[in-house]
Amino acid sequence: MVGVTGGADEPDITALRSAFIELAHCVEPADSAVGRLVERRGAPQTIHMVRGGSTGLRHGEGIGARLGELRAVDAERRAAKAGARIVTRVDSEWPTQLGDLGHEEPFALWVTGAADLRLLALRSVAVVGARACTAYGEEVARGWSAELAAQGWCVVSGGAYGIDAAAHRGALAAGGSSVCVLAGGVDVPYPRAHDALIARIADEGLVISKTPLGESVRRQRFLSRNRIIAAMTRATLVVEAAVRSGTGATARSAHRMNRPVLAVPGPVTSPASAGCHRMIRDAEAILACEPSEVMDLLDFARRAEHEPSTSTVRCARDQLGTRECRVLDAFPSRGMVGPDRLLAGAGLASGDVWAAVGILESAGWIEAADGGWRLVRR
Amino acid sequence: MVGVTGGADEPDITALRSAFIELAHCVEPADSAVGRLVERRGAPQTIHMVRGGSTGLRHGEGIGARLGELRAVDAERRAAKAGARIVTRVDSEWPTQLGDLGHEEPFALWVTGAADLRLLALRSVAVVGARACTAYGEEVARGWSAELAAQGWCVVSGGAYGIDAAAHRGALAAGGSSVCVLAGGVDVPYPRAHDALIARIADEGLVISKTPLGESVRRQRFLSRNRIIAAMTRATLVVEAAVRSGTGATARSAHRMNRPVLAVPGPVTSPASAGCHRMIRDAEAILACEPSEVMDLLDFARRAEHEPSTSTVRCARDQLGTRECRVLDAFPSRGMVGPDRLLAGAGLASGDVWAAVGILESAGWIEAADGGWRLVRR
Repeated sequence: MVGVTGGADEPDITALRSAFIELAHCVEPADSAVGRLVERRGAPQTIHMVRGGSTGLRHGEGIGARLGELRAVDAERRAAKAGARIVTRVDSEWPTQLGDLGHEEPFALWVTGAADLRLLALRSVAVVGARACTAYGEEVARGWSAELAAQGWCVVSGGAYGIDAAAHRGALAAGGSSVCVLAGGVDVPYPRAHDALIARIADEGLVISKTPLGESVRRQRFLSRNRIIAAMTRATLVVEAAVRSGTGATARSAHRMNRPVLAVPGPVTSPASAGCHRMIRDAEAILACEPSEVMDLLDFARRAEHEPSTSTVRCARDQLGTRECRVLDAFPSRGMVGPDRLLAGAGLASGDVWAAVGILESAGWIEAADGGWRLVRR
Repeated sequence: MVGVTGGADEPDITALRSAFIELAHCVEPADSAVGRLVERRGAPQTIHMVRGGSTGLRHGEGIGARLGELRAVDAERRAAKAGARIVTRVDSEWPTQLGDLGHEEPFALWVTGAADLRLLALRSVAVVGARACTAYGEEVARGWSAELAAQGWCVVSGGAYGIDAAAHRGALAAGGSSVCVLAGGVDVPYPRAHDALIARIADEGLVISKTPLGESVRRQRFLSRNRIIAAMTRATLVVEAAVRSGTGATARSAHRMNRPVLAVPGPVTSPASAGCHRMIRDAEAILACEPSEVMDLLDFARRAEHEPSTSTVRCARDQLGTRECRVLDAFPSRGMVGPDRLLAGAGLASGDVWAAVGILESAGWIEAADGGWRLVRR
């Protein structure tokens, strides 16, 4: 086994994964002192120092106490039992754009749902806003999210009351996928009144969190959750927001990370729109009148990355894995393909083929047809 | 008498006034061929050529026919009979900022009302919008105009149904002054249903038009009326506007003449706000959430001109005439002054003193107090 401090040509992925999972349990991602330690010494060595009480950090003892006897292997077992998986910075499913969070990039995410997080995130848009929204805001959030989802965009939000819930519901109603980023553990959905909604999001998309299982929400966790939403997505749409609100903070994060921010105007007599108006006036957000304007901006961002123009949103082929490309090549250019022909054509183990099919669907390359799948036409 | 073609040191103001009044009767201000002729030869010579059929212009005959036997002196007599006066480009009451209209600058304006047009225009803001407005737009137009008027701003609009009427009404309700710019003659108010409103505006402010008495509205006259509103005012506030509307044209004119344009957002579900949203998104207008933002912008424009900062809006002293300055100097720095003391202090004929008092009030320097006037405190 390669030494935990690295130095060999091939890094020990297992040791790295374990270290990130353990760091995720005992360190707040915003802890820049630990962040620097991880950068300098690597995650496995950092965890080794935490366990040995030799980090040299004033709060090292507290971190050690939080970690306790926890081992990554147990955490993963517990996650599997709760129907979740842990995705770490070194996993292929990691949304690498979270690196824009700098020292606040999570070490790991708990994920519930079958889709591929990285591929969904690559064609995602955040739809966020006030909990105390108006009927107008709710209608806009639901209607626009449905249109975005119908065009293949994954709607990311925070599962909260108000705009968030309307956005998720709109995306699901249109048969699209949605990602809910929770502030607490994925096994303790918050708010509880959204249990059923959050379960449905996991069925049709993903529910994710950087907070370990069983842990509840806290004010700081809401703020860092908001920044994850901003970093993960291609653009952020603010539907309604009061002046000086959590939503405003999400928008500013997105703006600082050079993600386009769009805001929906409303009556000047509505305090729920005052934050949107402020952002537009201060050029922190672009005024959006209809969902097509959001998509135009997203398409523009996509074209800027030289992706092929398609009728639906899809990830570039070179962002797919070898396995997915092999399965993709087994598809006829027209018409549908059934499971048997696909298995024979791909020449891979059936488990690999079905996993690849799930990812290709997430990535917008194929769609389910009766009894099989077909390529999404450009 | 000095020759009508000029050349002497002192231009013959009477001849110039007459020529402009006659040109106003027979030439559309947008007629750039005549505009060039006036620039090269002067207004009196141009009228001389029109009468003699020697303009050399293809449409010179039509212009001559429209002029017919009309003489300025008769036009002025007719105006006086209708309770109006004619203000020409060479009069001290002329709002010189209309020069930004270039060849479209009117030759003369018909004016009803006691206030001084130039001084009102110097502290004016246009509040315009859709005829087919919503209750929301009407409420914003009325409420904001009232606040603007209460702060000493003169609200200029077109007297039309919808936003225009609400703006005038708001300004009047706040005891402020308003200017209505009509597309037809000031003696044939349009729309007729606003007869009483327009009469009240003339009582409390001014009703003006570049169209001679008795002439009705025409499509082209609405458009050039809109441009006069844009040119005359310090800024244009658009409350509601559909996409591709007359209001949009007003806003674009204002934008091209470097007047700040502000637009009020509304629900994205309201077509009456779609034009406002378009302007904001295309950076042709600044989003405005409350009337204080309009005033901040106007104050900024005012400060940029090095005017003294006052609690109310006033014209700079060097924009006042000698007569007004003399009357102003007769005011005590504190407390009120009655008519007798003012007459004695100013040392002018009573007619001149009362005329100056009216102008100083229009200009925001003095205000009526019980039985007299006092300086408006800074």
